[in-house]
Amino acid sequence: MPITANDTNRKSWLEVPVNSDFPIQNIPFGVFLTKENIVTVGTRIGDFAIDLGALQQLNYFEGIELTDDMFMQDTLNDFISDGQKTWRLVRNRIAELFDVKNSKLQDNAKDRDIIIFKMEDVEMQLPVLIGDYTDFYSSKEHATNVGKMFRDPENALLPNWLHIPVGYHGRSSTIVPSGIPVHRPMGQTLPNGETTPVFGSSRSVDFELETAFITTDVNIMGENILVTEAEDYIFGMVLLNDWSARDIQKWEYVPLGPFLAKNFASSISPWIVTMDALEPFRTKGPKQEPTPLPYLQQKGKHSFDINLEVAIQPENGEATVISHSNFKYMYWTMSQQLAHHTSNGCRVNSGDMMGSGTISGPTPDSFGSMLELTWGGKNPIKLKDGTERKFINDNDTVIMKGHCQNGHVRIGFGEVSSKLLPPFVRK
Amino acid sequence: MPITANDTNRKSWLEVPVNSDFPIQNIPFGVFLTKENIVTVGTRIGDFAIDLGALQQLNYFEGIELTDDMFMQDTLNDFISDGQKTWRLVRNRIAELFDVKNSKLQDNAKDRDIIIFKMEDVEMQLPVLIGDYTDFYSSKEHATNVGKMFRDPENALLPNWLHIPVGYHGRSSTIVPSGIPVHRPMGQTLPNGETTPVFGSSRSVDFELETAFITTDVNIMGENILVTEAEDYIFGMVLLNDWSARDIQKWEYVPLGPFLAKNFASSISPWIVTMDALEPFRTKGPKQEPTPLPYLQQKGKHSFDINLEVAIQPENGEATVISHSNFKYMYWTMSQQLAHHTSNGCRVNSGDMMGSGTISGPTPDSFGSMLELTWGGKNPIKLKDGTERKFINDNDTVIMKGHCQNGHVRIGFGEVSSKLLPPFVRK
Repeated sequence: MPITANDTNRKSWLEVPVNSDFPIQNIPFGVFLTKENIVTVGTRIGDFAIDLGALQQLNYFEGIELTDDMFMQDTLNDFISDGQKTWRLVRNRIAELFDVKNSKLQDNAKDRDIIIFKMEDVEMQLPVLIGDYTDFYSSKEHATNVGKMFRDPENALLPNWLHIPVGYHGRSSTIVPSGIPVHRPMGQTLPNGETTPVFGSSRSVDFELETAFITTDVNIMGENILVTEAEDYIFGMVLLNDWSARDIQKWEYVPLGPFLAKNFASSISPWIVTMDALEPFRTKGPKQEPTPLPYLQQKGKHSFDINLEVAIQPENGEATVISHSNFKYMYWTMSQQLAHHTSNGCRVNSGDMMGSGTISGPTPDSFGSMLELTWGGKNPIKLKDGTERKFINDNDTVIMKGHCQNGHVRIGFGEVSSKLLPPFVRK
Repeated sequence: MPITANDTNRKSWLEVPVNSDFPIQNIPFGVFLTKENIVTVGTRIGDFAIDLGALQQLNYFEGIELTDDMFMQDTLNDFISDGQKTWRLVRNRIAELFDVKNSKLQDNAKDRDIIIFKMEDVEMQLPVLIGDYTDFYSSKEHATNVGKMFRDPENALLPNWLHIPVGYHGRSSTIVPSGIPVHRPMGQTLPNGETTPVFGSSRSVDFELETAFITTDVNIMGENILVTEAEDYIFGMVLLNDWSARDIQKWEYVPLGPFLAKNFASSISPWIVTMDALEPFRTKGPKQEPTPLPYLQQKGKHSFDINLEVAIQPENGEATVISHSNFKYMYWTMSQQLAHHTSNGCRVNSGDMMGSGTISGPTPDSFGSMLELTWGGKNPIKLKDGTERKFINDNDTVIMKGHCQNGHVRIGFGEVSSKLLPPFVRK
């Protein structure tokens, strides 16, 4: 089925600001709450949120086979479960309806009032019920940086890293959308040079710049999927801030991996940008040497050219961009990650989320965490207001943005922005 | 509220076989499917399954505040979410209704026919929708055995182990109830002495003898709960076989922990035995030395005397019991695990599951995995049919059982029994 929604010549009758992440070629999917307390599945064009539940009720999806309550839900799981054919039909139809050449909805003031909201009048929700969340560790630069700091500078990459898209399970219950503040965690740490741990608030709260992909129903238990078909099961991507408490992590993570250092919060951008919208931005990832085992081998372009940046905004201060990176630096592709994940028969369901791992580029200004940017706190970062940061301070807001640019077309993710509050005080 | 359901003198008008795990003092909760394809929440007395949805519809829970569809559901999550007071009211009422001295239901043949099923006529389902699954590592004997084999015999326990109930996140999507067969996983392994990995079926599939507890809604994000109140949030326990592929685990687990070595399957017993039913079997766990940090300190009896055993049954053969262990050997208590889990503000919800970690006792015949029982395959186990096992063979069934015994009262879990099938063949 042709992805006509990607037509770069199309313009919308809805106003789209210059450099918006959400031109009519994007058509991401999300869930929002209106001022009337109605939750619905929606999309976004420019600074307008579009209620897909209302659009369906008013019969604008006529001819597309959809269950009656497909969009009048508080998650996208059912829609994602319907598969790629449905996603394309719906996205193409939305593109047609909002095309400047199409007068059907454009000229129907009554329907427009029901369907279209200003972004400032809605509150974005978590777009999916995330059954299982996996986080990978697929940036060679990040794994090398961490290995140099925490293990052996001479053998920074562990022996399995070039053969396996290393990953681990994360916690679904604390994944929150952009805008929800996060408390500095308490935890057990071992002070430098001591042999007895202490309990207190973390002194090295960090972000990790990541993206994540959301899957449809992939397999039954026991079944694996091929790397060559894996992309068909990926619905779309979001930005992910994988909050990390480095001091807690250092003391707890051997031998079973990070746990409380990570599971206090993970923040995501609320609009899922579809793989179809990202299609024009395919690119090759780094050369994989040694050649992976056959179940991970793929030809062609399987990475995506997505510009990423991170800023820190102190309370009442101006934001300072502290890192520029790009998704294309990732060593392992999403399809390799998904094929590996199911290679043992592990079941993957609609709405499951898989994080990329910290996306660090080759240069020090492209690193994806404070740990790397300040090299373990040795080289603090100076913000525009003159203050310095080794890690994230209380009341700082961490803002991550991402977009693709191809000539005059820009497809973006918006942002994941979250404020770090002081430790929670029990009432 | 008194737990009158625990009255050891009570007898049921339903027949209970000698040495049944399910006398009227147990009253566990589960979900079953009838031959008429109806799914309902239920309990069990002797070899009878009792439909709690029907019991409610026929007004036998009169006077207890319950939502109309509390039991006509395919999971226990809503019931568990209602909290300890509701659990006790319902369990006490069931005890009264099935008490030999109570003629109300006993003498109503029509209602009995609707409510009571033979166990052989129902199919047990997963009792809860498990949002997040955490697995701990809380047996000192197990951690020491693994440390001796895989790391340093002189320093088998890692420095954090005596301070932290070490745990990690598992995969919810592949947790299955007893009776569902499991396929031997494929995966990447590094053959001994080689530097290049291979992909193939695991050659060392193992069980891990564990229990798991199921929580109610514990906290909001950011909030911690005290170790002294943690037990109130635990609904009950099940048996857990944490299937493990040792060769995959060995190659993948550094530095982020076990992943594909574990997430191909985890099997649980289908009846959740409530903490109330286990109350008479409280006991002290091992002395904790050094004293844990204050947030993990507790006084009194917080472990439980639960006898556990594992058997292997070859295809068409007799089962051989290969290990006897006991839950009381666990170093860290469930309340310490839960307090630690929320100490950083990690949200825990109704239906979440937390595994104990492999329960190994002090003697070699009480170890909870083939890895330990055969000491890494060095000392194969002889089965009754004369064959030997280093790990689990295709078509072997692994059967775990657990029960408490106190004078003439026995409260048990039934079993978690699962067959290991050969690798999945894609159609």
